[in-house]
Amino acid sequence: MRQWNSWGDSQVKMTVNTKARQFLEGLLGKATPLRDATLAEVMAKVPASRLPAHPLIHLDAETRVRYARGQSLPDWLAWRSGDIPVFPDGVALPNTSQQVAELLSLAKQHNWVVIPYGGGTSVVGHINPVADSRPILTLALTRLNGLIHLDESSQLATIGAGANGPQVEALLKPHGYTLGHYPQSFELSTLGGWIASRSSGQQSLHYGRIEQLFAGGRVETLAGSLDIPTVPASSAGPDIREMIMGSEGRFGIITEATVRISRMAEQEEFCVYFVPDWAKAKSAVRELVQQKIPLSMIRLSNAEETRTQLTLAGHALAIAGLEKVLAWRGASAGKCMLTVGFTGSPQRIKFAQQEVTRILKAFDTVATGQVLGKRWHQNRFRAPYLREALWYLGYAVDTLETAVDWQKVTPYMTDVEHALRHALEAEGEQVLAFSHLSHLYTQGSSIYTTYVYRVGTDYARTFARWQKLKADASQVIVKHGGTISHQHGVGQDHAPYLEAEKGVLGVAALQALAKHFDVEQRLNPHKLLLD
Amino acid sequence: MRQWNSWGDSQVKMTVNTKARQFLEGLLGKATPLRDATLAEVMAKVPASRLPAHPLIHLDAETRVRYARGQSLPDWLAWRSGDIPVFPDGVALPNTSQQVAELLSLAKQHNWVVIPYGGGTSVVGHINPVADSRPILTLALTRLNGLIHLDESSQLATIGAGANGPQVEALLKPHGYTLGHYPQSFELSTLGGWIASRSSGQQSLHYGRIEQLFAGGRVETLAGSLDIPTVPASSAGPDIREMIMGSEGRFGIITEATVRISRMAEQEEFCVYFVPDWAKAKSAVRELVQQKIPLSMIRLSNAEETRTQLTLAGHALAIAGLEKVLAWRGASAGKCMLTVGFTGSPQRIKFAQQEVTRILKAFDTVATGQVLGKRWHQNRFRAPYLREALWYLGYAVDTLETAVDWQKVTPYMTDVEHALRHALEAEGEQVLAFSHLSHLYTQGSSIYTTYVYRVGTDYARTFARWQKLKADASQVIVKHGGTISHQHGVGQDHAPYLEAEKGVLGVAALQALAKHFDVEQRLNPHKLLLD
Repeated sequence: MRQWNSWGDSQVKMTVNTKARQFLEGLLGKATPLRDATLAEVMAKVPASRLPAHPLIHLDAETRVRYARGQSLPDWLAWRSGDIPVFPDGVALPNTSQQVAELLSLAKQHNWVVIPYGGGTSVVGHINPVADSRPILTLALTRLNGLIHLDESSQLATIGAGANGPQVEALLKPHGYTLGHYPQSFELSTLGGWIASRSSGQQSLHYGRIEQLFAGGRVETLAGSLDIPTVPASSAGPDIREMIMGSEGRFGIITEATVRISRMAEQEEFCVYFVPDWAKAKSAVRELVQQKIPLSMIRLSNAEETRTQLTLAGHALAIAGLEKVLAWRGASAGKCMLTVGFTGSPQRIKFAQQEVTRILKAFDTVATGQVLGKRWHQNRFRAPYLREALWYLGYAVDTLETAVDWQKVTPYMTDVEHALRHALEAEGEQVLAFSHLSHLYTQGSSIYTTYVYRVGTDYARTFARWQKLKADASQVIVKHGGTISHQHGVGQDHAPYLEAEKGVLGVAALQALAKHFDVEQRLNPHKLLLD
Repeated sequence: MRQWNSWGDSQVKMTVNTKARQFLEGLLGKATPLRDATLAEVMAKVPASRLPAHPLIHLDAETRVRYARGQSLPDWLAWRSGDIPVFPDGVALPNTSQQVAELLSLAKQHNWVVIPYGGGTSVVGHINPVADSRPILTLALTRLNGLIHLDESSQLATIGAGANGPQVEALLKPHGYTLGHYPQSFELSTLGGWIASRSSGQQSLHYGRIEQLFAGGRVETLAGSLDIPTVPASSAGPDIREMIMGSEGRFGIITEATVRISRMAEQEEFCVYFVPDWAKAKSAVRELVQQKIPLSMIRLSNAEETRTQLTLAGHALAIAGLEKVLAWRGASAGKCMLTVGFTGSPQRIKFAQQEVTRILKAFDTVATGQVLGKRWHQNRFRAPYLREALWYLGYAVDTLETAVDWQKVTPYMTDVEHALRHALEAEGEQVLAFSHLSHLYTQGSSIYTTYVYRVGTDYARTFARWQKLKADASQVIVKHGGTISHQHGVGQDHAPYLEAEKGVLGVAALQALAKHFDVEQRLNPHKLLLD
């Protein structure tokens, strides 16, 4: 069953091995975990609903708790402390697009606020209710999760927007197709959520970002249904798909999406390489992507992340053996781990591997084959479960990401890690920070940074530490001209930084659109745009 | 020198050989060309300008004639008849973004209409002045054509938006780079025009459409400069680039563009194949693109186009020999010509050629090597010159295009050619129509249709024939759910059909944006959106 106050399935538990705990204690100091609120305690805090009874709307306290927050670190602290200032007044679970339209119509008629809810996996506050004099309805698309139409000839599938990652793949697999969209949140996040927040999957190098996968669909707006037809490409004015992608529920609610699917790959391999230092590693991966080698993934950990991951991996003896071999072949202290995905026909994979070998040779790379790659693939959706394991040891973990042009990759990465490591200096606290490049483009790369810090003596202090870390890092992103988010969206947490990216005129244009679609700011207010 | 009333350079003249003329006469009947107006005659019709003298604005009659129209067939008939109802009151040739901003500021202050002008190659009426009580200023970006910044590490070049195709390539070539954007209009069309109208080049399969190439830039709006920064990808809200692409001058004037460039290809080959019939040919190319073989172009002529092109090609003996060989190998009456482009490293080309051979084998394809492909490559920008040669024989030629999902490709193509061939039946006129697929996607393809008809006894009748043909074909596009334009934009000619593609709500959103950027409809009014 899905946990009410944590990531994912309650059956999946990760543990932190002794060596990893010692590593964290050595770096950050011993920690004392904070007390968790119980579900009963939180339910007791839920106020009376301001919504009327309706067959599609759940008004019970437990449901209103379960849909109150997403998966950001502030959300985590809210769940765990039980200090949730605003709950939705009710949660609707419509079964059809038509019912979504009816609920929107009721919302207009009775002056409700509506928050569209997909998998509840936002890490930037997309689905959190904000205090409002109007009743707040969370509208969960969960039940709109079927295969509506499959056009094998055009490789298009129309699927309910509430389908989550495993559901999408399960709908396509019997027909021999895949969407190939694998964000870290894959287990819970939904098709509609991916579109509304411009998601990117781990193998976007092959399958494309959601921008390339979303071909059209239906959006229920306050003025009626917006149907976006599928055409392979068009020069007929600005693209309406592009207007909806990233709109974070402000313009309407995506109920159906037609996506570009691919035949299941005949073969797939993930190989791990080690490059002696960061400068070489960055040049190597830039070369791979600029030479347009047909790969499905390039994932490059910096030296700090490589060291941390090898330390946390367990299997101390095996890792020691590996490191010995690598050192002997020239990849020692500063080495960077590179995981490359190959997807497609055997011929394509053979060609890509020859090209990768040819290019990486110039950068003194050591190939280790598929063992570590297989391990990565098995655990690719496990990282979110780690937050709970660390939490019980008294550590908080969060991640942040951006994308910048190649010229800015190293300066940004150096700066953001420095900022994080020193952000809590005034309190005498250390922060562990490391990064990897996960989505590569000819023009530049995303940079995904993980940071771990010790919880404070209470929730308020723990949250204040996060605020300082997040603000400092966001300012480094702005300073380097990065996007405030490459794959998580804007929500509440990134809204203050949007103007730095879009410009005053860009934000004004988005505000004009929001006003056009929703003059009363009824749909997901305070998200994306500062109101 | 550029011709005032035709496509391109006055030095380039195409001729129609005797066999081709006989072919057209046999099919459409002998024709009598219409009399062309002279430049002096047209200049004499230019009324007094309503604009004041300004150092950047040309008010002379010849300039006002030269910038009055684009390259659509209605434009052609306007030039040739001399019947041009509206001329711009003046033509500004600013040298900098700052001067563009100043001109916009003057336009606001003095209540002028402003038409942004790139290469004047629009085939849908983008740059045609429409009668207005306000003075009309055509603002040509021609002089903004330099290389502003080159970031080789990120493969980004910032170039003045007025640079035309050859200028863009000439700026990049000394550094070893190419943009690789080759629309048919390459010789004259400009970077800013490509962006404003969402252009697509012949090798978009490798280099991408302008949507993939345009990374950011500067747009001068009535509210100030909109600077779009470059990031490789972003999930931070709807993409402002996508709002500007296809805006056809309604939101602002693009003055600088940063584009994603590629290293010059090491090698390039264009190979021609013949497939015995259309059904096989369509399946073959769909397979090539859905298997994501790394090609730079796939261009498939249907049987009618193949027959027409082989007839018009000249070299009757060589063609007869070729056809004999093809027939012996199974490709006779219904055969379809397929041109495939290979671009990149020798290894990549070798891999792609092996894959193409493997896939095409299943469709009984006959390979003829590079001879015809080289010929295509040499003449790739020549087709627009053919209009003049046919005109002097009394025939009018026009093209139209759309894109549809694979399922609809054959039904649409059959219908549109049928509609064109029968459109002038009431007058007893025949129409020659043939098509090719030029831009292929996993989801579907563009279909580019050429049609030739006999001019009427006067210009009015000739124009009426075009109106009938264009309307009938556009309705077929709408009926099949195609885009009203895959690569030419909307302008005036496609505006009535935009709502069928975008929906009432989609068009309303674009209108809201147009109003936001330009409440007085000062920028290119009546284009893109019906006002």
